[in-house]
Amino acid sequence: MNGGEAKIAIVMGSQSDWPTMRCAAEVLGELDVAYDARIVSAHRTPDRLHAFGKGAADEGFHVVIAGAGGAAHLPGMIAALTHLPVLGVPVRSKALSGLDSLLSIVQMPGGVPTGTLAIGEAGATNAGILAASILALSDAALAERLKAYREAKTQGVAERPTD
Amino acid sequence: MNGGEAKIAIVMGSQSDWPTMRCAAEVLGELDVAYDARIVSAHRTPDRLHAFGKGAADEGFHVVIAGAGGAAHLPGMIAALTHLPVLGVPVRSKALSGLDSLLSIVQMPGGVPTGTLAIGEAGATNAGILAASILALSDAALAERLKAYREAKTQGVAERPTD
Amino acid sequence: MNGGEAKIAIVMGSQSDWPTMRCAAEVLGELDVAYDARIVSAHRTPDRLHAFGKGAADEGFHVVIAGAGGAAHLPGMIAALTHLPVLGVPVRSKALSGLDSLLSIVQMPGGVPTGTLAIGEAGATNAGILAASILALSDAALAERLKAYREAKTQGVAERPTD
Amino acid sequence: MNGGEAKIAIVMGSQSDWPTMRCAAEVLGELDVAYDARIVSAHRTPDRLHAFGKGAADEGFHVVIAGAGGAAHLPGMIAALTHLPVLGVPVRSKALSGLDSLLSIVQMPGGVPTGTLAIGEAGATNAGILAASILALSDAALAERLKAYREAKTQGVAERPTD
Amino acid sequence: MNGGEAKIAIVMGSQSDWPTMRCAAEVLGELDVAYDARIVSAHRTPDRLHAFGKGAADEGFHVVIAGAGGAAHLPGMIAALTHLPVLGVPVRSKALSGLDSLLSIVQMPGGVPTGTLAIGEAGATNAGILAASILALSDAALAERLKAYREAKTQGVAERPTD
Amino acid sequence: MNGGEAKIAIVMGSQSDWPTMRCAAEVLGELDVAYDARIVSAHRTPDRLHAFGKGAADEGFHVVIAGAGGAAHLPGMIAALTHLPVLGVPVRSKALSGLDSLLSIVQMPGGVPTGTLAIGEAGATNAGILAASILALSDAALAERLKAYREAKTQGVAERPTD
Amino acid sequence: MNGGEAKIAIVMGSQSDWPTMRCAAEVLGELDVAYDARIVSAHRTPDRLHAFGKGAADEGFHVVIAGAGGAAHLPGMIAALTHLPVLGVPVRSKALSGLDSLLSIVQMPGGVPTGTLAIGEAGATNAGILAASILALSDAALAERLKAYREAKTQGVAERPTD
Amino acid sequence: MNGGEAKIAIVMGSQSDWPTMRCAAEVLGELDVAYDARIVSAHRTPDRLHAFGKGAADEGFHVVIAGAGGAAHLPGMIAALTHLPVLGVPVRSKALSGLDSLLSIVQMPGGVPTGTLAIGEAGATNAGILAASILALSDAALAERLKAYREAKTQGVAERPTD
Repeated sequence: MNGGEAKIAIVMGSQSDWPTMRCAAEVLGELDVAYDARIVSAHRTPDRLHAFGKGAADEGFHVVIAGAGGAAHLPGMIAALTHLPVLGVPVRSKALSGLDSLLSIVQMPGGVPTGTLAIGEAGATNAGILAASILALSDAALAERLKAYREAKTQGVAERPTD
Repeated sequence: MNGGEAKIAIVMGSQSDWPTMRCAAEVLGELDVAYDARIVSAHRTPDRLHAFGKGAADEGFHVVIAGAGGAAHLPGMIAALTHLPVLGVPVRSKALSGLDSLLSIVQMPGGVPTGTLAIGEAGATNAGILAASILALSDAALAERLKAYREAKTQGVAERPTD
Repeated sequence: MNGGEAKIAIVMGSQSDWPTMRCAAEVLGELDVAYDARIVSAHRTPDRLHAFGKGAADEGFHVVIAGAGGAAHLPGMIAALTHLPVLGVPVRSKALSGLDSLLSIVQMPGGVPTGTLAIGEAGATNAGILAASILALSDAALAERLKAYREAKTQGVAERPTD
Repeated sequence: MNGGEAKIAIVMGSQSDWPTMRCAAEVLGELDVAYDARIVSAHRTPDRLHAFGKGAADEGFHVVIAGAGGAAHLPGMIAALTHLPVLGVPVRSKALSGLDSLLSIVQMPGGVPTGTLAIGEAGATNAGILAASILALSDAALAERLKAYREAKTQGVAERPTD
Repeated sequence: MNGGEAKIAIVMGSQSDWPTMRCAAEVLGELDVAYDARIVSAHRTPDRLHAFGKGAADEGFHVVIAGAGGAAHLPGMIAALTHLPVLGVPVRSKALSGLDSLLSIVQMPGGVPTGTLAIGEAGATNAGILAASILALSDAALAERLKAYREAKTQGVAERPTD
Repeated sequence: MNGGEAKIAIVMGSQSDWPTMRCAAEVLGELDVAYDARIVSAHRTPDRLHAFGKGAADEGFHVVIAGAGGAAHLPGMIAALTHLPVLGVPVRSKALSGLDSLLSIVQMPGGVPTGTLAIGEAGATNAGILAASILALSDAALAERLKAYREAKTQGVAERPTD
Repeated sequence: MNGGEAKIAIVMGSQSDWPTMRCAAEVLGELDVAYDARIVSAHRTPDRLHAFGKGAADEGFHVVIAGAGGAAHLPGMIAALTHLPVLGVPVRSKALSGLDSLLSIVQMPGGVPTGTLAIGEAGATNAGILAASILALSDAALAERLKAYREAKTQGVAERPTD
Repeated sequence: MNGGEAKIAIVMGSQSDWPTMRCAAEVLGELDVAYDARIVSAHRTPDRLHAFGKGAADEGFHVVIAGAGGAAHLPGMIAALTHLPVLGVPVRSKALSGLDSLLSIVQMPGGVPTGTLAIGEAGATNAGILAASILALSDAALAERLKAYREAKTQGVAERPTD
């Protein structure tokens, strides 16, 4: 589903973020939404970051999902470089469990937003769903798939716990 | 700008959230985007919440901006009731300065996303901008206004600090 | 002890909360108090939540014990929907160890209370005991069993630590 | 409403907690529920604490609301001394804004519960409401007054924010 | 070294605190200082707590070392019941790693002090050393042993790290 | 009461700590215990620190009370330089309200203890009381004054709150 | 002292950071070290950021002092763009008092360092001193001025506190 | 590379800090920069600390990298004793994961700076790089090696994540 005409970019600061960010890719796959997953390190590849952010709209992306841990500047810096919606996923960090990642991503100054999701895998999954819900605003078929996905989740909740 | 055909709903838990959430309204006004501002208390008006969440898409909304403080269940509960994109604004709380609001809004379980912005006024402004950037994906004129808004902010940054 | 005429409901957001919430069930079992354990997800099954909260009193429940983790909206939303006493148990979360769950449950606005217990198993056990102590106000036999339970715990404390 | 046959005790660690705990008294007054407000300092009057805790049931109390700040041992120590339901209110502290009070009150070990409310005035108000909801389980008239109180709060929520 | 004429009491809330508090016992053993180690649960054995605190001076104790985790009321409640110096050791807790224990022990109100040590084993060791340094004020031989202990620790620090 | 033969030293990192540390001086004055108050900055006067710590015992001090804010190295460094009991008072800091001061003072490694009191004025008062309780172990008259002081505090607690 | 041949750049995210960052300028002025103070917003002027970071060495700067609040990406992004030493100053933020700023600046991934100072004015002053100490490594006259500055601070510490 | 004419000292509070601080040594080795690694415990060897700090400049060091955990006084105390640049590395602590170490190191008062890096291994690596970048200001060959090191890191970032 990692396709050429993808409207959703999934970027992350390093290969080590992939086990988390893969959850975004997986839910987009389930929803049959094409995405393009890349590594863009704000700190090690600032030129790649600059080029990616500046060119994201021209590449045809509609939404950028960005995940990073620790100082986690990636989502906010992409948001500074594009007027596309940017969703941020705080990856769990070694010492502070992602609290640093969360604050670095969410506490953006007025003028440059990142829509921030939960720390870790749940947040990555939700970034995928939120991105899909944005695309679904102008894609009725996707809206239906999204409703079905949500409905299936609802149906999957058992009535009672089992040991 | 509080109009009938608004695509953006701004909801908040109580009147006391308005000084914060007004920042979302103001930036949408600057961007010439219609919005509808309402009070929906998750805890005091759960039926209104249920009705609002269920009916938001049918009312014609494309994006819901929800602000709340403390336990701050409003954004997440709306997200549970609609498949529209929901953006959450943590309102600063009295004892814990909004850290409780932030965690209550952002730490959603996998399956039901809220795109969370910064605590307080900056977050409300950014919720407005992010909502506009979502609408702009299918509204070229708004996209231009958004770019101009962002460009004006860039131009407004002085070269040097002044005493 | 999971009985039809139960006065205590134990609800939780997902099956994964059961290893924690089972502690509430177990202590109620020890105290010979009937309970009804159910899964009600605030986020995945909001209609079930709405129905449960609205109908809890009519189902004959006197106290609702609700456990959830992360954004943990379940206890507070049930409290919004019923005038019965609601006790909340913050389930330990992956990234933030339940600090998010605790704040989401306890920081309710004035008007809609949840009586919150400790994070994790101890909190679930204590929710069971607190619920029993509420029922015991009008059930002298239960009050005796509760006193005996507490007394046995007191007796069980050794005089000195052993290696 | 500070009456002899009160079923609810409101105790607090010092006079300085009264501006917070008065909110519990006020809501009980609105609900026409008698209460008895006292100062019991866990640290300065440990004998008074011991006597109060041991005798609370015999004094005719059904629920104890205890508020304290900082180390905030009062609610937990009362809970250790009585089998009555004890509700704890974390009073905002000078340096840590009540986070210390909250953790000291809520993190009780398995076996001795305190049902903890929010930090500060909202928590005190809610302790009053929760205590009333417990009494209401065997007092149909109070249950009606409580429903009316809740309903009035619901009615009091405006549709839209005003500047 | 767990002796009848001990001047130092080591008390803890439960057997599960012993692996931590044993560090206090061990360092006192190294310093040839008699101690008496007991379990006194503030919450499960409040009468034992009351009796212990009231009688500690009469039992001949000069210093009380008290360790507890979570709500951790033991050190502060003993301090409320005796005018002897009380040293508190925050035991690491399951969810919050002892931050709750630390705040509950250290944030005592003016008038009733607990001298608080670090979270966990280091804190227990240091409680033992601090207690010994207090006794050493009127025990020249112990003062010498304490200096020798400290000097040996100084000598034990290597010049360079080794792989 | 700032006397030559003082057994208690009150040291602080800067003049700005005096409004806090004065509380220690005041309670010692009430207890008729001589003290010597000095400014010793760990960071600006490290030689003075070294000399003070090394010479504290020879100066005749029995207990050192040290207060500092922020990085707050003073108490721990004095503890490293003397075998006397050292009590640490975390002074409230501008940005982090003394949480930094508290952790810097209390989290000492095994081998070098500081007995830490609460953040701010209450902690300073308690450092004075704890120091007095240490001296009282070999000063029966002081022990009586301390008991009287504590008893007066107990007597000063009113039965009921007043508006 | 804001001079053309300055070896130290002081950059900040916005005019509102100047009251904090001015402390860096002032101490450099006292040390007779030229600096160049500029506003570079990582989020509003990402191109200026990119150009500044890339060109800082060629402009003749030896050290960059960067201050920012909240998400605070400025120091880390400059560090990504230059191999010069970058010192970061966390500016106090409205809701979280600079804890967010601190974590965003200090928690950089391996490979791209920012030397981080304390939150607020003290940190800005210290960034100036640390930058001067770096220049002083190859400027003996500055080294003397720095020693004199430090010595004067030492001399300025009074022996005793005054009311 | 642990050489006699080393311009960089790597000091740490104990052998147990070496697995972290070794990362500083390793990156300096990669950059062909001599260093001298030593154990200096602020708390167990305060005389060694005093002598080291006072003599660091005379030993020929240009930069001191100091790592410590918990109360972590080492970096700040060295900074108090020398006018050389001091870089601090917060070592991860057992209970609080290095948050205590971080605050103890970074929150220095105005006048005595420590340039603080991230918690743990990444921080140690970055201390090495930052120290090298300081030396590189007057060592063109090292500046080239540093650029090459940074460039190699940039080249090492893959375009896309792999499973």
